[in-house]
Amino acid sequence: MKFARSDVTRSTMTPTALSDTDVAHRMADAARQAILPHFRAAGLQSDNKLDQGFDPVTVADRAAEEAMRAVLRDLRPEDSILGEEFGAVEGRSGRTWVLDPIDGTRGFISGTPTWGVLIALGDQNGPFLGVVDQPYIGERFIGSPDGASVTGPMGQHLLKVRQTTDLSEATLFTTFPEVGTAAEAAAFHRVADKVRLTRYGMDCYAYALLAAGQCDLVIEAGLNAYDIQAPIALIQAAGGIVTDWQGGTAHHGGQVIAAATAELHAAALELIQQTA
Amino acid sequence: MKFARSDVTRSTMTPTALSDTDVAHRMADAARQAILPHFRAAGLQSDNKLDQGFDPVTVADRAAEEAMRAVLRDLRPEDSILGEEFGAVEGRSGRTWVLDPIDGTRGFISGTPTWGVLIALGDQNGPFLGVVDQPYIGERFIGSPDGASVTGPMGQHLLKVRQTTDLSEATLFTTFPEVGTAAEAAAFHRVADKVRLTRYGMDCYAYALLAAGQCDLVIEAGLNAYDIQAPIALIQAAGGIVTDWQGGTAHHGGQVIAAATAELHAAALELIQQTA
Repeated sequence: MKFARSDVTRSTMTPTALSDTDVAHRMADAARQAILPHFRAAGLQSDNKLDQGFDPVTVADRAAEEAMRAVLRDLRPEDSILGEEFGAVEGRSGRTWVLDPIDGTRGFISGTPTWGVLIALGDQNGPFLGVVDQPYIGERFIGSPDGASVTGPMGQHLLKVRQTTDLSEATLFTTFPEVGTAAEAAAFHRVADKVRLTRYGMDCYAYALLAAGQCDLVIEAGLNAYDIQAPIALIQAAGGIVTDWQGGTAHHGGQVIAAATAELHAAALELIQQTA
Repeated sequence: MKFARSDVTRSTMTPTALSDTDVAHRMADAARQAILPHFRAAGLQSDNKLDQGFDPVTVADRAAEEAMRAVLRDLRPEDSILGEEFGAVEGRSGRTWVLDPIDGTRGFISGTPTWGVLIALGDQNGPFLGVVDQPYIGERFIGSPDGASVTGPMGQHLLKVRQTTDLSEATLFTTFPEVGTAAEAAAFHRVADKVRLTRYGMDCYAYALLAAGQCDLVIEAGLNAYDIQAPIALIQAAGGIVTDWQGGTAHHGGQVIAAATAELHAAALELIQQTA
């Protein structure tokens, strides 16, 4: 798998000659530049989008989405956009870019390197290109019909889920121990009770680790479409499976299970769907 | 604050002319080199130290401690050593290096960049030099009587705890939601119920974030001396406080509370010590 990443290549290409992958890289580059000056900055401001709970929106979040939308206005003006911060723009191509400029804002304001820039591109069949970028580490996970890879501190590597089929050998991630409602937490913990290791707090980074063959299951609830579309495309490109808790499409968010193998997915889904 | 970090400087110095900080950097460099080839490597082996639970020890863990001990044999042969993997070596200087080659082995085998190499140097009064190194990110937090700083993806910066005094504005970290015993978990959750934000899963990285002014409290239980001595020296150098849950010294591990300010420390300690 190759990326046309050199500036020389780019500067001699017309916008329309850029691949979707090239456009996604430019968007992720722009988001990095917009966000990093704000990460761990003293006096970071946040305001609450919700009256209840804690859902901070930072200057960085908005600046990054603006920067990514500017790339799309230049290079993909016909495509639709769905973004966390600035809503939907209807295009005419039948393709939609789904953007979460900072997934894991709680992690971001806590200084952890577990938040990410999420970029997905899909059509009526769902997302087929997904980027999970961690700007502070300088690590970019990308999945597309061409395959899945990561570029980061240890160079570039292809990604492949690992072949864990037994829950007793699986590592499971979710972000918050409470997961969602009491029933959702109970469903999660029925799986957690059967796995080898359960870990918390990784935000979108957990999905990237699943694609990278480092963990086997991610189970979450209460997601939005822009939280999950990039992970779906990434994980599918690495050989894994993402569905909702009924085994159907997870493109619209809600309750999500991502698994390395079909066997693990089936075993976890059975526990999730048990009535207590 | 300055580090004598250039190779030119080093190669012309005799071992005894190296500062303790220089020695600590050499140890951390050696540990990085020993560990990184094993991080996220396919087929990572681990074996259980405990019959119950999950406490993996990797090849990387042992190789890194060996590499750090080799540096000390060369450069600080008179000092004592206490290491996680290979136990204690008695020296004659009255000073002890306390080593945890991979703190957060569960994080390590899950691929998260939240584990760290911990190096502390102390005397009869406790640790006064502490390093928390995250090799994958390439990020090194160091605290000593000269001050506290981080060197990483965004360059070198001085570290200072932030001045949060009210629990309602605090961000709290611990690694596992279960914390320890049921009573320890209850004590933790009395504090968690009062803070603005509780986050999980960061291993030793949480202490580094406290020193960096990104979070305000870390509360854990069941720690060993080698888990906490480097964080103590780092956090104290950045202006924070680390004690056990009785307000006494935490050098020996056990139940630990780290706080950005005296006010926050007192408020959290009062809740911890309440009987349910």
